[in-house]
Amino acid sequence: MTPGAGSWVVGVDSGGSGLRVALAEVTARGPGPAETAVSRTPVRTGEAGIDARHLLEQLLPMVHGLRGRGGAGGARPVAAVAVGAAGMATLGGQLRAELPGALEEALGIRGLALAADAVTAYAGALGQRPGAVVAAGTGMVAVGTDLTEWRRADGWGHLLGDCGGGAWLGRAGLEAALRAHDGRRGGSAALLAAAESVFGPPAGLPGQLYPRTDRPAVLASFAPEVARCAAEGDAVATGILAEAARRIADAAEAVCPRETGREVEIALTGGLLRIGDPLLVPLLAELTDRLPGARVVPPAGDPLSGALSIAAALATGSLQLPGDPAMLHLAGPGGAV
Amino acid sequence: MTPGAGSWVVGVDSGGSGLRVALAEVTARGPGPAETAVSRTPVRTGEAGIDARHLLEQLLPMVHGLRGRGGAGGARPVAAVAVGAAGMATLGGQLRAELPGALEEALGIRGLALAADAVTAYAGALGQRPGAVVAAGTGMVAVGTDLTEWRRADGWGHLLGDCGGGAWLGRAGLEAALRAHDGRRGGSAALLAAAESVFGPPAGLPGQLYPRTDRPAVLASFAPEVARCAAEGDAVATGILAEAARRIADAAEAVCPRETGREVEIALTGGLLRIGDPLLVPLLAELTDRLPGARVVPPAGDPLSGALSIAAALATGSLQLPGDPAMLHLAGPGGAV
Repeated sequence: MTPGAGSWVVGVDSGGSGLRVALAEVTARGPGPAETAVSRTPVRTGEAGIDARHLLEQLLPMVHGLRGRGGAGGARPVAAVAVGAAGMATLGGQLRAELPGALEEALGIRGLALAADAVTAYAGALGQRPGAVVAAGTGMVAVGTDLTEWRRADGWGHLLGDCGGGAWLGRAGLEAALRAHDGRRGGSAALLAAAESVFGPPAGLPGQLYPRTDRPAVLASFAPEVARCAAEGDAVATGILAEAARRIADAAEAVCPRETGREVEIALTGGLLRIGDPLLVPLLAELTDRLPGARVVPPAGDPLSGALSIAAALATGSLQLPGDPAMLHLAGPGGAV
Repeated sequence: MTPGAGSWVVGVDSGGSGLRVALAEVTARGPGPAETAVSRTPVRTGEAGIDARHLLEQLLPMVHGLRGRGGAGGARPVAAVAVGAAGMATLGGQLRAELPGALEEALGIRGLALAADAVTAYAGALGQRPGAVVAAGTGMVAVGTDLTEWRRADGWGHLLGDCGGGAWLGRAGLEAALRAHDGRRGGSAALLAAAESVFGPPAGLPGQLYPRTDRPAVLASFAPEVARCAAEGDAVATGILAEAARRIADAAEAVCPRETGREVEIALTGGLLRIGDPLLVPLLAELTDRLPGARVVPPAGDPLSGALSIAAALATGSLQLPGDPAMLHLAGPGGAV
């Protein structure tokens, strides 16, 4: 029997829309079917980074609730926990300091992984195989590994990068709309009409954007309009999507392992892909052109299932994804393992 | 004698760095030598736009102080006031409602102009002649007039435009720095070194930018580094400046009058021009190429002198710049004139 099989593991996905938690039994082939719980309250981020206490206040009752669902058998023992969080690399100091002790005390766990959300997205999409994963939503980041080390490209936020992501696309579309409004070169009447239908008269657009605290999301809300205009034949919108595809491919190319001796896989994940062919067609063409040795595959699962699979691999001593201080911090109850 | 000559006029320039006020006697050839006062307290902008009361609280004591400097002659009578303010078009509602009455009561003025800061920049640079003025600082806007109507291009802020301005340039430079850091195509090792010398390790850059409320200024602070790298031969930085020049020229081209029957002038103004030849050389080449009938001239004066010249033209009934609800709102004590 696989060591650790029969024990239970917890996966956690913490992000801007809240906290998702999954509990599953470990089998010889990884985590079994999961039970999940969701909190719509995003974990607070303060001056000291992600607030460990606020995370635990939500996480522990959710885990206890999931453990209790087993019925007659009583609370199921948890062997390992993996937490994926947005900003873990730069804002995870408090989690790294406090979670190992707190979770050992509360749950008796033997293994803990604190992962960047891009790493749980990777594990969800490709499991423990070498390759690259693009996560494109409002932002855009690519991570890759040859199972020796992690590489990461972009993910710098809407003012420094996230090139080709939702906020980038929406911003480029609105800029082209305003070019048309002003009579500057490079404008698109179709994008201007779309902007007016979403935001009203252009003169009011700055006032609808700049005072908001969720400016990237406001920009990204226009990305589907850029895709629609491209699908309807607008040349400027088509050009913006082609540029987005090149920029996303730049990031995938920078992180995708070469010469591993085996075929590597690339998975595309994230909500931006829902805009469909206007982005996917040029993006697949770019990836095929630049990375002929890689195969684009559909993601096997989501970041929450990725966290669960990392926890299961920890519990069974079979983790092949490489540890990394910023990307995948591994801690036992007594400290780093 | 010119009507209005011998009376006094006030020009006001209100912006993010404070309030500047000038008083001058009207002569047959426009305002005479000005006396000026400066407040470092920017006029507040609230939900209702630019705060008229806060402007008046600062402006009136400054005007009274300047009027009193005349000595034995007593307080000098003010015939007209022109106020140029950033955001006047969209945020100037309270000023348009309250300033005419308040300034008539306090100063007995007969004429008031409320102008977009781009219009006072225009009047300062080109006076009342047809042409186009580019104002490039942290942001970027171009305005032009054939003396019948105003045209305006860009000036949409750092997320929607201001293409080629300081924040745009700095942002493009930092993006290229992070491309080099990530190993993406299009990166510049020279810009990465410059970014590290200004901001420290790249991992800390998002934390130094996103929490700030003056993000455009932080981005613009890197523009001189882009110019320096270009001057030292970095191809990526040179490409960024060439692109900035094209985008600024896009705006100038969109607003510059054609077929006026007389030569039009273009003036380049604003702090961004201090980065010098790396921007000016490609920009002048673009302008010459696109607008062969226009002549690039040095600006005659700054926005404060522009406000003063508008006030003097109001006082003498010689205003040739066209009124416009958003760009140049003209009000007499009894209402719009």
